[in-house]
Amino acid sequence: MIEAAIYGYGNIGSGVAEVIEKNQDRIEKAAGQGIHVKYVLDLREFEGDPVREKLVHDVDIIVNDPEVKIICETMGGNEPAYTFTKKALMAGKSVCTSNKELVANHGAELIRIAAEHQCNYFFEASVGGGIPIIRTLNNALKQENILNISGIVNGTTNYILTKMEKDGAAFEEVLKEAQELGFAERNPEADVEGYDACRKIAILSSLMSGRSVDYQDIYTEGITKLTTEDFLYAKKMDKTVKLLAMSKLTEEGYLAMVAPVLIGQEHPLYNVNGVFNAVFVKGNMLGDSMYYGSGAGKLPTASAVAADVIEAARFTGTHLQIDWGEEKIALADMPSSKRSFFVRLDRNKVLEAKAAAEFGNGRVVFLESLPEEYGYITPVMSEREFAEKFEKLDGAISRIRIEGK
Amino acid sequence: MIEAAIYGYGNIGSGVAEVIEKNQDRIEKAAGQGIHVKYVLDLREFEGDPVREKLVHDVDIIVNDPEVKIICETMGGNEPAYTFTKKALMAGKSVCTSNKELVANHGAELIRIAAEHQCNYFFEASVGGGIPIIRTLNNALKQENILNISGIVNGTTNYILTKMEKDGAAFEEVLKEAQELGFAERNPEADVEGYDACRKIAILSSLMSGRSVDYQDIYTEGITKLTTEDFLYAKKMDKTVKLLAMSKLTEEGYLAMVAPVLIGQEHPLYNVNGVFNAVFVKGNMLGDSMYYGSGAGKLPTASAVAADVIEAARFTGTHLQIDWGEEKIALADMPSSKRSFFVRLDRNKVLEAKAAAEFGNGRVVFLESLPEEYGYITPVMSEREFAEKFEKLDGAISRIRIEGK
Repeated sequence: MIEAAIYGYGNIGSGVAEVIEKNQDRIEKAAGQGIHVKYVLDLREFEGDPVREKLVHDVDIIVNDPEVKIICETMGGNEPAYTFTKKALMAGKSVCTSNKELVANHGAELIRIAAEHQCNYFFEASVGGGIPIIRTLNNALKQENILNISGIVNGTTNYILTKMEKDGAAFEEVLKEAQELGFAERNPEADVEGYDACRKIAILSSLMSGRSVDYQDIYTEGITKLTTEDFLYAKKMDKTVKLLAMSKLTEEGYLAMVAPVLIGQEHPLYNVNGVFNAVFVKGNMLGDSMYYGSGAGKLPTASAVAADVIEAARFTGTHLQIDWGEEKIALADMPSSKRSFFVRLDRNKVLEAKAAAEFGNGRVVFLESLPEEYGYITPVMSEREFAEKFEKLDGAISRIRIEGK
Repeated sequence: MIEAAIYGYGNIGSGVAEVIEKNQDRIEKAAGQGIHVKYVLDLREFEGDPVREKLVHDVDIIVNDPEVKIICETMGGNEPAYTFTKKALMAGKSVCTSNKELVANHGAELIRIAAEHQCNYFFEASVGGGIPIIRTLNNALKQENILNISGIVNGTTNYILTKMEKDGAAFEEVLKEAQELGFAERNPEADVEGYDACRKIAILSSLMSGRSVDYQDIYTEGITKLTTEDFLYAKKMDKTVKLLAMSKLTEEGYLAMVAPVLIGQEHPLYNVNGVFNAVFVKGNMLGDSMYYGSGAGKLPTASAVAADVIEAARFTGTHLQIDWGEEKIALADMPSSKRSFFVRLDRNKVLEAKAAAEFGNGRVVFLESLPEEYGYITPVMSEREFAEKFEKLDGAISRIRIEGK
């Protein structure tokens, strides 16, 4: 029997306790020994809840108990999770976390501390909920040079975009409904502005490169400006709009960004709907692959933490190498990157000939239901060049990037 | 530097050499040391090919060389692969294989022999080519009770079905074209009759249950009887036909089968087209997940072997447990299993009222282009009950099973 503790008894933390309890036979078999949760750290009291037996308010009780070998950190946020995680690792206890913010900020450092103390810092649950994307990158695909990772890694925004597409509803309306259903936070900024997806692609980009990608360096655009009309055009073009978190190995280095993009039916992420997440990975030998599943939710996320707990238990006393160095990597220059854009233009202000003259020869998209405007698909050009033309063009309504595979 | 050998220098074997050569920096970093291919075992001479330097015709040269720690077995077939694999494992050398036939026949035994000799028998490449489905089941999802695995695990048949769907072409015609393009074997029986998929779902079912599923116990039906008309009906119902290899945990035990089935657009496997493979996995905590990628092909399959080589190198001298016992498991009775069926009926022989009287209240599907017949979706009933009714009904043309998630 191996003793574990849970930092933070919220949604995910209580889910971890539930998964360890419900699937204890499987977990014992896989870990080679049973897993027992000895402590739960939380400031709250949980009156009348059986968890009270295990509840402690002082992290040092856990850190100083030599019996405890594994910590599940499900507190979220930077502090006190950062301090508490360091304390645990420095005491030789492996930490399994769902805290994407902490991993994005201090992943490489915490892995180094784990290595120095012959324990592990695992973070499967920090990206893609129950999808084993971290283990796939760290383990199953280590023989590959990863050329491209593109993911739908935020369930809230994917739910909103799916509803906008299927029901023709407006952003604000769907957001309100999602909040009422509990699929979106009362303060939805981290999701709808793309900040959550940005942290996650920073983590994936770091694993892709073996060095540290600072999430603050990643161009990030949310979904708040998308409209019903955008989805009408998308449908006409046999495409849809998805918030993708992308990282590509280019000749200029790793190009990372988070933005809503138009993707076609041939794209493996086209059919990922609702709260589901999926990550597309292209390797130089493997070619295209894709990993799909529940990107959020109590039990799927807790299941990913439990996978880490099993690995931590199997390799107690051994540090398993994760290739994520502390050296910060400079990303490729985003304004120089090239792609095609979809622009909505006011028909009374910009004639088609003018669009062609401005953006180069592209393709016009008409919608009968929107007679006062039209869509224009530009040829491939740099972000910088496009932005300059778009901003100074009177009659340019909005734009969305177009993404191939 | 760790020394390796390749058994069989065919398509996959030469691919393994290529992946190890091309991605040597990645592999060295991940394995903790470089991997060098010291020998290639093949009966052929390969005049003028640089591989000749490493070529041996006698397996004992490899087995008796204490420097060699890892074997890549890419010969295929039962013998001599079985004998050669046992020799290697008994000499304490880990074996990484792409040989689904051998794994399906002797996987549990070879894992036991590896355990007895502190080495490993790895078989990532035996199912799903480059998709890391074996590692996902053995590692990332060990905390889950796996309830359902459904896979498109044969690229040849999926290519044929995709062409039949998109081009409205007949089976024989597409098969011929696939043979000319090299996507189908000259003797296509193993693919089109479902035998290849059957071996693969036997392997996955064994990992799901932790015991041995005999592939000969699995009901297997191929795609040779599917017609252009079937795809017309499928389209009308917003469905498609896929050859699925399925294994489900039911109250009566594991129910496994390979058969063409109708699946709807909501199914995660609906959009898996061409030679791609994908495996849907449902866990009791995780819920739905799906793993998609190149299911065949030289480099993707070789990449999966290389992933095993890295793991074998990292853990040289240590056996990593794989939960696959030799005890044979009895599968659930397939004729008792229940589902809904799609039946084509001759309109001149079976009136709709008669269909309803025979099969129970279902749904009629008309196609204007096929005025002499109609389709009927039966209510859920047992395979046995359906088969009895279908076989004795004069005017019943053909049938396809319908599969939900």
